[in-house]
Amino acid sequence: MPEPYVHGYSPREARRLADQANVLADRLHAGVRYPAGARVLEVGCGVGAQTLHLARNNPHSAITAVDISPASLAAAQQLLAGVGATVDFVQGDLFALPFPDAAFDHLFVCFVLEHLPDPVDALRHVTRYLRPGGSLTVIEGDHGSFLCHPQSADADAAVACLIELQRRAGGDGCIGRRLYPVLCAAGFADARVEPVPIYADPSAPDAVEAFTRNTFNAMVAGVEQRALEAGLTTRDAWQRGMDALERAAADGTASYCFFRGTATR
Amino acid sequence: MPEPYVHGYSPREARRLADQANVLADRLHAGVRYPAGARVLEVGCGVGAQTLHLARNNPHSAITAVDISPASLAAAQQLLAGVGATVDFVQGDLFALPFPDAAFDHLFVCFVLEHLPDPVDALRHVTRYLRPGGSLTVIEGDHGSFLCHPQSADADAAVACLIELQRRAGGDGCIGRRLYPVLCAAGFADARVEPVPIYADPSAPDAVEAFTRNTFNAMVAGVEQRALEAGLTTRDAWQRGMDALERAAADGTASYCFFRGTATR
Repeated sequence: MPEPYVHGYSPREARRLADQANVLADRLHAGVRYPAGARVLEVGCGVGAQTLHLARNNPHSAITAVDISPASLAAAQQLLAGVGATVDFVQGDLFALPFPDAAFDHLFVCFVLEHLPDPVDALRHVTRYLRPGGSLTVIEGDHGSFLCHPQSADADAAVACLIELQRRAGGDGCIGRRLYPVLCAAGFADARVEPVPIYADPSAPDAVEAFTRNTFNAMVAGVEQRALEAGLTTRDAWQRGMDALERAAADGTASYCFFRGTATR
Repeated sequence: MPEPYVHGYSPREARRLADQANVLADRLHAGVRYPAGARVLEVGCGVGAQTLHLARNNPHSAITAVDISPASLAAAQQLLAGVGATVDFVQGDLFALPFPDAAFDHLFVCFVLEHLPDPVDALRHVTRYLRPGGSLTVIEGDHGSFLCHPQSADADAAVACLIELQRRAGGDGCIGRRLYPVLCAAGFADARVEPVPIYADPSAPDAVEAFTRNTFNAMVAGVEQRALEAGLTTRDAWQRGMDALERAAADGTASYCFFRGTATR
């Protein structure tokens, strides 16, 4: 039985998510600003890495964050309490949340759909909690967009292991490119998707550290054991891939593209 | 003997370049603004597709544009005359241009390095025409960044033909990701590279038409004959690839990333 959340729940993974959120926050959350008093529901908040920025950027909105994992919610609560942000955390399955219909003005969904077998169905289910005319914001990555210099077939093979494991777990690590049709198929109106690129080279050591090493390379590194167990790679091939990714961080370049979609109920 | 310029010199190709320049101009030329009186040299202007925007955006600069192809220069002159822009066109090989040293304040190089066997050497050669403290702007694509929905191995194979043909002609269709090390190795200071993403889906039919169909898909379509002659594909496989690219335009999505680098002599 495959683990549905491919990245796992380790403390190292939690730190990776926080690093990622910090360096990417300005880009990913650009334009994600809600009016004072707006009722905002974050679906699938995980350890709160994005909730943190959602709350910081919208201090006068009423933010509710739900996740299916009690452990993740506990971590999220601790993270948010540490910065004095007020968020209402609720444990629940997104297919059966404990809210009345149309209880929220805005939905925020970040790095969630990529892990679901049927993202259209998931969005259709949560739509009911959004008032008519309310907005949906969805942010996803697309691992197929990763480019690095020096180019390396070994690095590409390691990334392909992540994509394949995510596929076997029922998800889609390349969902970014199909966000638009997903939003439309879920019945939303006025769907708009924009690319959110991130690029790091030695001229910006902070970006290299935060994105290339601590976000992307760490995400790939996190599936080593599963990739080996699944027979998708060997210890040697995996090491060559990780060495190539580290070379891209050490004195090369790395590029990746997220996609941010917005739509209206 | 491989044709060094992989895209060829047909009228259809000239129109493709003009379409591309029009839709991409705002993004590609963002920030490419020079002071009044600045002496600007565009190296490798081709049919003037970018020269047009350079001249429009910098009406009070003194723009000189060079290319090795007399036919391209004639087309560029006609294009620029049609919009009343004043540009000094000069025919010449970038490795031996008829200018005194330090004759220019700024160099502009767009979609040129990707076609050269040694882009570092090329930049080193043209550096002499730039005054110390002057700026260099380089814009290149990276065909490895292309993503489309629906995903298609056939489309990927067609794009791979373009990349391989460009490699055999001595170029690098994936140069975008290594622009930073190229600028550094050429001896420039303060090198900075930023990604310039473009994305098109049915919510923006103009972008689909101008980018996906008339720029990217047309660029791939342009190498059909060479790909067949080189034995890189078959008629059937090629057609499947082009059908997949057309599906991405018809009701799917397409994403691509250019890279813009700036540096100082």
